[in-house]
Amino acid sequence: MAGVVPPFPDIPRTVGPLGDMPADEFRTAGHALVEWIADYLQHAERYPVLAQVAPGEIARSLPGQAPEHGEAFGDILADIDRVIVPGLTHWNSPTFFAYFSICASGPGVLADFLSSAFNQQAMLWRTSPAATELEAVTLGWLRQLMGLPDAFEGVIYDTASISTLHALAAARERALRGVRRTGLADRDDARGLRVYCSDQAHSSVDKAVILLGLGHEAVVKVATDDAFRMDVGALAAAIADDRAAGRHPLAVIATTGTTSTTSVDPVPAIADVCERHDVWLHVDAAYGGAAAIVPGMEWILAGADRADSLVVNPHKWMLTPFDLSVLFCRHMDLLREAFSLVPEYLTTSEAPEVRNLMDTGVQLGRRFRALKLWFVLRYFGAEGMRSRIAEHLRLARLFAGWVDETPGYERLAPVPMSVVCFRVCPPSLHDDPAALDALNERLLQALNATGKIFLSHTRLRGAYALRVAIGHARTTEAHLAAAWRLIQDTALGA
Amino acid sequence: MAGVVPPFPDIPRTVGPLGDMPADEFRTAGHALVEWIADYLQHAERYPVLAQVAPGEIARSLPGQAPEHGEAFGDILADIDRVIVPGLTHWNSPTFFAYFSICASGPGVLADFLSSAFNQQAMLWRTSPAATELEAVTLGWLRQLMGLPDAFEGVIYDTASISTLHALAAARERALRGVRRTGLADRDDARGLRVYCSDQAHSSVDKAVILLGLGHEAVVKVATDDAFRMDVGALAAAIADDRAAGRHPLAVIATTGTTSTTSVDPVPAIADVCERHDVWLHVDAAYGGAAAIVPGMEWILAGADRADSLVVNPHKWMLTPFDLSVLFCRHMDLLREAFSLVPEYLTTSEAPEVRNLMDTGVQLGRRFRALKLWFVLRYFGAEGMRSRIAEHLRLARLFAGWVDETPGYERLAPVPMSVVCFRVCPPSLHDDPAALDALNERLLQALNATGKIFLSHTRLRGAYALRVAIGHARTTEAHLAAAWRLIQDTALGA
Ligand SMILES: Cc1ncc(COP(=O)(O)O)c(C=O)c1O
Ligand SMILES: Cc1ncc(COP(=O)(O)O)c(C=O)c1O
Repeated sequence: MAGVVPPFPDIPRTVGPLGDMPADEFRTAGHALVEWIADYLQHAERYPVLAQVAPGEIARSLPGQAPEHGEAFGDILADIDRVIVPGLTHWNSPTFFAYFSICASGPGVLADFLSSAFNQQAMLWRTSPAATELEAVTLGWLRQLMGLPDAFEGVIYDTASISTLHALAAARERALRGVRRTGLADRDDARGLRVYCSDQAHSSVDKAVILLGLGHEAVVKVATDDAFRMDVGALAAAIADDRAAGRHPLAVIATTGTTSTTSVDPVPAIADVCERHDVWLHVDAAYGGAAAIVPGMEWILAGADRADSLVVNPHKWMLTPFDLSVLFCRHMDLLREAFSLVPEYLTTSEAPEVRNLMDTGVQLGRRFRALKLWFVLRYFGAEGMRSRIAEHLRLARLFAGWVDETPGYERLAPVPMSVVCFRVCPPSLHDDPAALDALNERLLQALNATGKIFLSHTRLRGAYALRVAIGHARTTEAHLAAAWRLIQDTALGA
Repeated sequence: MAGVVPPFPDIPRTVGPLGDMPADEFRTAGHALVEWIADYLQHAERYPVLAQVAPGEIARSLPGQAPEHGEAFGDILADIDRVIVPGLTHWNSPTFFAYFSICASGPGVLADFLSSAFNQQAMLWRTSPAATELEAVTLGWLRQLMGLPDAFEGVIYDTASISTLHALAAARERALRGVRRTGLADRDDARGLRVYCSDQAHSSVDKAVILLGLGHEAVVKVATDDAFRMDVGALAAAIADDRAAGRHPLAVIATTGTTSTTSVDPVPAIADVCERHDVWLHVDAAYGGAAAIVPGMEWILAGADRADSLVVNPHKWMLTPFDLSVLFCRHMDLLREAFSLVPEYLTTSEAPEVRNLMDTGVQLGRRFRALKLWFVLRYFGAEGMRSRIAEHLRLARLFAGWVDETPGYERLAPVPMSVVCFRVCPPSLHDDPAALDALNERLLQALNATGKIFLSHTRLRGAYALRVAIGHARTTEAHLAAAWRLIQDTALGA
């Protein structure tokens, strides 16, 4: 790999015993980094996608304690090539097809650079009017692109895990008035609380429920149909049973774009059930919400306008560098009721007229995350966002077609979005599920060991399934075709 | 302000209907940004410190919806000067003395730029061996600098709010075995849980307790002595009383560096009480932990080696751009017990030998935060970190001396670290607390309206107090002297 990326220049150390890195040194270092990053983003595929280091290798190659004397910036940068890059799994590679493929687009990265420099701590409006108001403006844009009604107010958190946690905290506050003050242990109405989601829902739901003190037993995993969508009949029955048994249905999480297969729960029918039982409806569109901006794909969020809250992650499929998750909520006042707490040192004179972001969350400090989403939406434009996501949808269908038409391969789930679940399935093993699983597991390991592509897996109705997830702006049909050839060639030896 | 910062150049738009920003366009844009940021960080004091915009002004100056067609990057950058900068409160100004003064140092900002480009999502070891292992290495360095024993394992979160939340979640899991599964409502041993902290503790403690379902009533605010330190006798009495009344002491939070005055709770004596009652001891050193690396200041963390967990925020006083908080914990296994949950799609073959960061937290995804702390510690070196923090300590004592020797001014708290609480107190108003408060409030507003400095306030034993907090690497004695002159001049007219 040596010599491929521009080597970092010597950067003379000019910093004194006090003060920050001097501006000229920052310039030299910054320009070198820009060259390096431009090259890296353009040619990420030159590295093995999945890091090929052994556990402990990186830690062992580094000193056990901080240097006593400061080092030259160029020496630190040299360790990027030497130590860090070999230990990266290249999420920016166009052949990263694992989990959900994400993309740190150029404008997003540059915006985040500015954000780091501004170092805004946007807890209060006054500590960053720009971060506070740009968040509202940008989330207004996003809401419109997704076709959600104005009644949804948005707030940016770091991750969907935290967004969903806040949604469920608001649901808890609504169902158990005053729980903020009393807690759960001493009240009868807190017994037997239940949160429903499908058996395909993301583990962040479980973690939120655990954290909130409801207990993992409160999570009811509702069965799914043959397309991995929540069975609404089963949901309605579970709620009715729980009611009859004196339990207390608190919230339903509908997922539009599940993690394994991107299946879409039938939100309109789920909303009917929630309304009937006065249960909070939270839509997890962390991944799938992005696709809803594409003409013809609005169905993904059908019924979501009736939800109480919805999470979408621009850091997943919207070209925005990690981390940036958005919670849209119809009842921001409930979030405030659950979390607002203003000690004297944070009181401000503009309090009633402005929004103070610390009031809607458990995190006090927050960085200026809206900036990167704003840059991305402006640079690509609504049209450019749509065309890129539409292309990923097209590529996934194309890949699904290749799987379908190839003997010895089997697709294991519908492809509503940009993930294809499949397996190699030679006729000789048709009746041997254990051997099929073992074969596909070997295939996955062999593929990832090539360093050329990175796939992950899931289990669908017990069967081991490979997943190809498409989501990077630089991924082209040629990358996908090469991946498909590699899969077929590797399967021959697996 | 026009013409002072280098204007952004025209950046021809070369992006196609698909794909990312082309590399050459990224280079042009990136180099322009480096010049702009270098200049910004060097001359942040040319802007009003506290943003002078009116509520709604920024939002109103922006379009209500996303552009349909992508815009040239130069046009987006032009809005930085036009819209964003006037709406920033300049946390990077050397005369930002509000809250806790923080610092996005050059090496930290550059490292974070790389981090954004790498776009690591370090949920699993394999999805970023570099982020996972560099976190362990860097936190090892930090632990040694702070003089904490090896028994503390570290984990990086975004904020101290989240660190303390996890510490209390672990405490909950230890005190109530299986609470993860059962929740709080159905178990008798969950009634009357109590969490103790001083009346000076940070609101993040309250929020964590609320979120965990313990209820705000579970927080016992222990009185403080005349130096704003927790009264350990009062703590012991509160715990004994609660025990006698059948309540269940869960955890004590000792703060070493409180938000209002940076007072340091007597951790050794608190640890005695906690050991006697088998109560979890969490040390909130979010701000103060940094000072403990300075020779002569080790006393700040005396006794902290006996804590169960401790939070320190490198994004506060350690030259690291927001966000990066560290939780050190002796019982990482408990955090895993409380949070580990591995769905099939996240199982990996290396699971037993490696650390998967998602197992110790509620957030699944996490960005590569360790990189910026690693850059900062290497660039400044242990010596450079110490000298900068020591300088802030010196400046605060100097300022305190000026207050003390100036008639008509009164210092309202000891100055163990880098915050000075004081007020103007003309002899004529000595006996009129309300008038004194009003005068100081007017003074604060007048000072912040100048745009030259930004201070915040607190209340100490009921009295309105101005706070001068020092923490930026570019803050010099000259800045402080100018601030002191400005305060005195402004007070004459207030
Ligand atoms: C459907 C769904 N929801 C939530 C999450 C959690 O996302 P985050 O890492 O932002 O917490 C994921 C992550 O893959 C997901 O796929
Ligand atoms: C003592 C103390 N603890 C915790 C916090 C919360 O910090 P964060 O914004 O990282 O959640 C603060 C913030 O000022 C603090 O002063």
